[in-house]
Amino acid sequence: MLYYGADYNPEQWPEPVWSEDVALMRRAGVNLVSLGVFAWARLEPSEGEYRFDWLDRVMDLLHDNGIGVNLATPTASPPPWFSLAHPDALPVNRDGVRLVHGSRDTYCVSAPAYRTACDRIATQLARRYADHPALAMWHVHNEYGTWCYCDHTAVAFRDWLRRRYRELDALNDAWTTSFWSQGYGAWEQVLPPRATQYLPNPAHLLDYRRFLSDEMLGHFVRARDILRGFSRAPVTTNFAFGGWVPVNGWSWAKELDLIAIDCYPDAAGRGGRQQVAFAADLARSYASQGPDKWMVMEQAADMTMTADGHLARPAGELTRHTLAHVARGASGAMFFQWRASAGGAELWHAAMLPHAGPRSRVFREVCALGRTLRELPEVRGETHSEVAVIWDPESWWAMQAPGLPSPSLDYLDAVAPVHAALYRLGIACDCAPPTADLTGYRVVLVPGLYLVSDEAAANLNGYPGTLAVWYFSGLVDERVRVRPGGYPGAFRERLGVRVDQFAPQPPGVGWELSTGDTASTWRESVTLDGAVAVATHPDGTPAITRYGDSWYVSTRLSDPGLTRLLAGIVAAAGVSPPVPSLGGDVEVVRRGGSLFVINHGDHPVELPSAPGRTVPAGGFLTLPAY
Amino acid sequence: MLYYGADYNPEQWPEPVWSEDVALMRRAGVNLVSLGVFAWARLEPSEGEYRFDWLDRVMDLLHDNGIGVNLATPTASPPPWFSLAHPDALPVNRDGVRLVHGSRDTYCVSAPAYRTACDRIATQLARRYADHPALAMWHVHNEYGTWCYCDHTAVAFRDWLRRRYRELDALNDAWTTSFWSQGYGAWEQVLPPRATQYLPNPAHLLDYRRFLSDEMLGHFVRARDILRGFSRAPVTTNFAFGGWVPVNGWSWAKELDLIAIDCYPDAAGRGGRQQVAFAADLARSYASQGPDKWMVMEQAADMTMTADGHLARPAGELTRHTLAHVARGASGAMFFQWRASAGGAELWHAAMLPHAGPRSRVFREVCALGRTLRELPEVRGETHSEVAVIWDPESWWAMQAPGLPSPSLDYLDAVAPVHAALYRLGIACDCAPPTADLTGYRVVLVPGLYLVSDEAAANLNGYPGTLAVWYFSGLVDERVRVRPGGYPGAFRERLGVRVDQFAPQPPGVGWELSTGDTASTWRESVTLDGAVAVATHPDGTPAITRYGDSWYVSTRLSDPGLTRLLAGIVAAAGVSPPVPSLGGDVEVVRRGGSLFVINHGDHPVELPSAPGRTVPAGGFLTLPAY
Amino acid sequence: MLYYGADYNPEQWPEPVWSEDVALMRRAGVNLVSLGVFAWARLEPSEGEYRFDWLDRVMDLLHDNGIGVNLATPTASPPPWFSLAHPDALPVNRDGVRLVHGSRDTYCVSAPAYRTACDRIATQLARRYADHPALAMWHVHNEYGTWCYCDHTAVAFRDWLRRRYRELDALNDAWTTSFWSQGYGAWEQVLPPRATQYLPNPAHLLDYRRFLSDEMLGHFVRARDILRGFSRAPVTTNFAFGGWVPVNGWSWAKELDLIAIDCYPDAAGRGGRQQVAFAADLARSYASQGPDKWMVMEQAADMTMTADGHLARPAGELTRHTLAHVARGASGAMFFQWRASAGGAELWHAAMLPHAGPRSRVFREVCALGRTLRELPEVRGETHSEVAVIWDPESWWAMQAPGLPSPSLDYLDAVAPVHAALYRLGIACDCAPPTADLTGYRVVLVPGLYLVSDEAAANLNGYPGTLAVWYFSGLVDERVRVRPGGYPGAFRERLGVRVDQFAPQPPGVGWELSTGDTASTWRESVTLDGAVAVATHPDGTPAITRYGDSWYVSTRLSDPGLTRLLAGIVAAAGVSPPVPSLGGDVEVVRRGGSLFVINHGDHPVELPSAPGRTVPAGGFLTLPAY
Repeated sequence: MLYYGADYNPEQWPEPVWSEDVALMRRAGVNLVSLGVFAWARLEPSEGEYRFDWLDRVMDLLHDNGIGVNLATPTASPPPWFSLAHPDALPVNRDGVRLVHGSRDTYCVSAPAYRTACDRIATQLARRYADHPALAMWHVHNEYGTWCYCDHTAVAFRDWLRRRYRELDALNDAWTTSFWSQGYGAWEQVLPPRATQYLPNPAHLLDYRRFLSDEMLGHFVRARDILRGFSRAPVTTNFAFGGWVPVNGWSWAKELDLIAIDCYPDAAGRGGRQQVAFAADLARSYASQGPDKWMVMEQAADMTMTADGHLARPAGELTRHTLAHVARGASGAMFFQWRASAGGAELWHAAMLPHAGPRSRVFREVCALGRTLRELPEVRGETHSEVAVIWDPESWWAMQAPGLPSPSLDYLDAVAPVHAALYRLGIACDCAPPTADLTGYRVVLVPGLYLVSDEAAANLNGYPGTLAVWYFSGLVDERVRVRPGGYPGAFRERLGVRVDQFAPQPPGVGWELSTGDTASTWRESVTLDGAVAVATHPDGTPAITRYGDSWYVSTRLSDPGLTRLLAGIVAAAGVSPPVPSLGGDVEVVRRGGSLFVINHGDHPVELPSAPGRTVPAGGFLTLPAY
Repeated sequence: MLYYGADYNPEQWPEPVWSEDVALMRRAGVNLVSLGVFAWARLEPSEGEYRFDWLDRVMDLLHDNGIGVNLATPTASPPPWFSLAHPDALPVNRDGVRLVHGSRDTYCVSAPAYRTACDRIATQLARRYADHPALAMWHVHNEYGTWCYCDHTAVAFRDWLRRRYRELDALNDAWTTSFWSQGYGAWEQVLPPRATQYLPNPAHLLDYRRFLSDEMLGHFVRARDILRGFSRAPVTTNFAFGGWVPVNGWSWAKELDLIAIDCYPDAAGRGGRQQVAFAADLARSYASQGPDKWMVMEQAADMTMTADGHLARPAGELTRHTLAHVARGASGAMFFQWRASAGGAELWHAAMLPHAGPRSRVFREVCALGRTLRELPEVRGETHSEVAVIWDPESWWAMQAPGLPSPSLDYLDAVAPVHAALYRLGIACDCAPPTADLTGYRVVLVPGLYLVSDEAAANLNGYPGTLAVWYFSGLVDERVRVRPGGYPGAFRERLGVRVDQFAPQPPGVGWELSTGDTASTWRESVTLDGAVAVATHPDGTPAITRYGDSWYVSTRLSDPGLTRLLAGIVAAAGVSPPVPSLGGDVEVVRRGGSLFVINHGDHPVELPSAPGRTVPAGGFLTLPAY
Repeated sequence: MLYYGADYNPEQWPEPVWSEDVALMRRAGVNLVSLGVFAWARLEPSEGEYRFDWLDRVMDLLHDNGIGVNLATPTASPPPWFSLAHPDALPVNRDGVRLVHGSRDTYCVSAPAYRTACDRIATQLARRYADHPALAMWHVHNEYGTWCYCDHTAVAFRDWLRRRYRELDALNDAWTTSFWSQGYGAWEQVLPPRATQYLPNPAHLLDYRRFLSDEMLGHFVRARDILRGFSRAPVTTNFAFGGWVPVNGWSWAKELDLIAIDCYPDAAGRGGRQQVAFAADLARSYASQGPDKWMVMEQAADMTMTADGHLARPAGELTRHTLAHVARGASGAMFFQWRASAGGAELWHAAMLPHAGPRSRVFREVCALGRTLRELPEVRGETHSEVAVIWDPESWWAMQAPGLPSPSLDYLDAVAPVHAALYRLGIACDCAPPTADLTGYRVVLVPGLYLVSDEAAANLNGYPGTLAVWYFSGLVDERVRVRPGGYPGAFRERLGVRVDQFAPQPPGVGWELSTGDTASTWRESVTLDGAVAVATHPDGTPAITRYGDSWYVSTRLSDPGLTRLLAGIVAAAGVSPPVPSLGGDVEVVRRGGSLFVINHGDHPVELPSAPGRTVPAGGFLTLPAY
């Protein structure tokens, strides 16, 4: 049975509303709710004073109605009393401003007082609810991601650095502190990257990110272990997605019983569904490094937040997005939140039950979707991919340092178009860390992998299948030190090319390659060192090269050009989509023994491979895979 | 006699200049000057040491020349000695940065030391000048609007909240602190909305705004009462206009003897004069809630500050703007300032007497305008309007919270176009608070009234005339809590519609309604519940509805479409302009027994209703109204 | 022999790399390196502990290979131990945030502890290396320009103000503190322009800038004097260029033995080379006020940072830019830096020896350029100019205050187009301070000289040659006080015009003058008071006037219009280029007995004046001047 439900925040409503909620949940087919995510102030209204009676009643009510509970440790939102009692545990930004309660996430994850308070509330919850029959899983914290630059953080950061480097000289070397006279003479001189006079040190920034990821993971593990001491229910936490999130999913995956993601595409239409597919592939791939199970913990039932502001979701889209997740292996899909808030900072956040109540298009679709999920054939099978896209949070973080050779260099903007091109081709793919065992794949794609450790470089260079590498890859090692002798550093030999000069291009300027495809943004002086040019710039110099089964893409291709290139690469490697293309609006995904066919377009589509079967406009079908 | 003059800052000039000033004032027809607004440092050069001799001489000189004085308490600009003596009385921004002297407005209105210093200087001035024959009125402070987040403010904010809510539980309820674990367990946990980690609480923000308005009003009342203890001259203060100004004109009006506004349009041409008309209508409407008298305290004799920078004012415009104010009821119009400063932060601010001196186009127009005002027929009569536009600072403030469903939602941008459409139609209108007695009006217009208290909702729903409501109205109550069950919440029944989903649209996209008018920016899923559609979207769903005398506009109309719609609404209600339209550049306003006809265009215009009378290009006429 | 080399930072590399470096330097023709600029942490790893052995070895190695050393005091980048030992010596921004190490430039130039530490390290270096045979010159600090608002700064600022004004009343007068009640009653009330509530005082801002320039100059002089105590090598420092740099080159020039500039054009192509020419003319002009020698201390061997991001430099450009400097008088040209860093904040900064190593286009060009410079005929002669462009950092700084009549007013944007027009005409020019002896020039150009002291006004008005003044000149005196009676204040009489009103125009709007040229951005109401109009606006009012040999340009001309105007002005004054124009891509500069002809274009150009001689595309020639 697929999970279906939402964050449920009964503390926002008087008790009479709860029974209405549960009745409507049943109507909608809800079988799981996340409970207590933001209930700390209600559960512990003053330090050490606990109020569980209301939660007991909610848990019982849900259980009586057959709804499971994903019970949260509420530590992402400390109550106001916590701020006053422990001002040193509030987060401090890089300018030294100590932030205060009034929103959520007002804590320093390294502050001892905060850690103690978290342990206490987690213990209380675990002890009380470990054996409650409604308990289905544990939801530790919420969207880890609060940065802090305070003195507690400084202590923890130094401890982490000491463990990583042992000797201060090793740190000085790794951070290239010989530049700009930054040599540290004692550990206590090392600080988080607080506001400074001019450009910060990129290795310092990156290690601070790595530290934050590990430090938050430590916080998670502590809560998990407390919960495990009382309970055998699986423990998870929900990952936010964004350049600001200091969480390395690959290392976290090993500690989770279940991967959970929040998925809020920031584009409408085709862009939105490409993001959904990418998020799902990434979540499934994280899961493959650990628990082998994943789910969507939050999505929005209405309103997509885009660069142009919120847009209403068209009818059927939340169904299609949810099925796209399921097709890619999700164990279920939940929303934030069940009932739209009447007040508070997110009173305009969408919900399964909108302000208008059950008499609403959204709630009708929510109910229909619940039915659809219940009636789906068994989909617990596996997803099989022959293509891997390398995904590396450390390269993402490293590319956020100032001072790259072009403002157009952006890690997500390097990876997402490659994933989107596979999506358009209907080719399933996994994401993989650069040190993964890649032997199961026929094709490995390496877009924008700026930072590569020696270990990762050896892994990728030794990979026996088809390897395609994009520009701005392989340049620096894990210390953010350039690999000398010519670009693309780590991959020069495998690719049979050598680059001695970058030539970033101004925005808005495009040119035609010898293949007829359009390039823009970036080019390089590529010398062939074994490879042959398969596409050249107007001046005849190489743009895309091939050296046996190794491809180098030294320029930015337009989306159609990228799609054509990838079509050629995967075809040459013997990879094909599960069914021939049904046009750009039809998504076909195989999971286990089922084929999901999702029609995002405005017209019904006939399935050539299943004569007589038609996918309605905006609808979907599942077929047995063959 | 209409007031005419400016801020006069003789402390900026050596005494010999004063006699030249007064001679030129006489030439210009100046009869009132605001004195001492920024003279605190001159009047009290060190704590408790007073220097009034120079001010005595200025007052005498003005009186000798028949010029009245609007004497200011100089409290908007504490001197440097005040900062050093009372650092705790300096303003602190939301990040905790304590601002220091070096500009103006460097005070915390809640700081005891500041209050004491203000009382002292006000008392000294009142005692000394109460009986001076030049004294015409008192000008308390200047453009109230300095925010502060310091600990004094926190104390005062909590006191205000205690008075408003009595019990902490009521505050918790009103602020929906159940969201994000914000429940307060003790009053001392409540702070101003200082920098926090993520989105702030909209009810917290709004109450802080309300508090600031009341707190500043308390400061005003304290000064007013001191002055009244010595003097019977009317007491006023000048209102600034802008989203940042935490002053609710409706509640302030009751405490003033005379409403005074500063009017600095931020657009040139047509946009500028629409702003003038709106400011004047708003000021007159404020006055109608209290003293029934208003004036323009500041405007600029040259240079309009627009989004594109300053633009020189074309010849005749300051005359036309001034007359537009007078036509709408102003008791006079003043400028900032008399003589352009040679130095200081506003050395490029326009003045009646520019840097070039009396040999200048601007000073010539200033003199002519003085003559014009003197020669105007008696204009003390009343302005009569049959249309009211609801104006609610609380909705403005509430809509400034982050997290609305669309970045295009802006209160001023909802109201101003409605007022501008009436302006284009030549229809006089008042502004009114949502709880006003509206029985005197035939038509009441409700644009963008996001927040409506129960009392206001009852008032508007019970209004017996024609009511037109625009989208994003009636949604939340005074606690910023959504009215459930479908939009537009408070007005659903009166309007005979129900909306279950918003559909904000991306910027730059327009579409044609069934009426041929263009819509953009916003649409909704409107279900008719009694109403009929009078305009539909291309897909046939309702865009504008009518239910008896109640109209609902659920989309954003282009300006011409809005004008056409309002023409229809007011005509159906039997409202017509004082004279038939003379084209877009001619403004016709009736005040008492006079008709003001102002020609903003480049061509003379003949008056059909007064054969043989022509309004010159860029000029004006007054006629007896009939 | 022309200097040729770069910053050399051997501390970034293991010793075996040093010998490779020196061998490659020899190949490239390097004869000078700047050493130790960022080596403080290496030289003094903890307070008072010195490590010179490594530097001894580097100096010896360089000397053994015939490479001179420009030895730096490393004070621009204090080490981390300094921050911890002297937190009060860290810089504080205007919001009061104390910045910390982690970048470079983390010091307050007024902090006693910093001054002491600087003296100590300078003394150590001077004592040890004064007599080293490699020592060619001293490089004090690096790109002076770190602002600070801390309490040490406040003390120093007050001392500076006391010296400037003696009496507090004089300061009050100079700052027009009568505006906005800013009158100071005691010296301790005066602070740096820290964060305040609203607009700051422009005279306060300007004096703070002047103070910073003098304070930093004091720091330089102290280091210079220490060095001179031990050594007779010339002492210099490298000027950064930009609106944020609080260094007045005119006053500094007198204290330097050699002017050195860093030259990083922020535009590609034609815009870049105009910037190079301007920078060179400015540096030469600074030098003419003092040491009469100048050089380029830093430029980039690759990558121009533009508004659109970095762009690769085309082949040959660094040669052409370097020769453009030499043609204008440079004693040599250096780069930042020798070998591209592997890590640190500027790992993507270009270098003579790129990441790709000697097998690279850039290094090949570097070697060729070294050869070119060695083979140049003797170029130590002088540059002779008949045209001077007034350059005044104080006007630049004053125009950065908020509140000017138009956001389009920008000092650099007033001066650079005038210089660029001369460049296009091939007319050599100097820059000159407004108080310079101008008698040697035939034409003096005064663009955007907002601020003019009485002394400067007298100097310019008394200049006997052709004088052309642009709008927004002559308006305020050195106290930023408007000169009354009509614009352009100081120059009204000389120009025979009087302006009573400015009319800034919105961006993007142009109009045609009577001359057919296009104007935009700015116009004024010009009354002729002796002058005649030589160009008028469409309404017939004067746009450009002439009064004998005095021209007034009251509007912004397009570049072609400005070029035509200047062509006329210089021709009328009898000034002509060294050779007739060879088209826009060919730069012809005379230095001493040589004519430099630099062809920036894509086609070879024949020299009419030297039949048979052709300048290759992208290349250059030197000829004897005649």
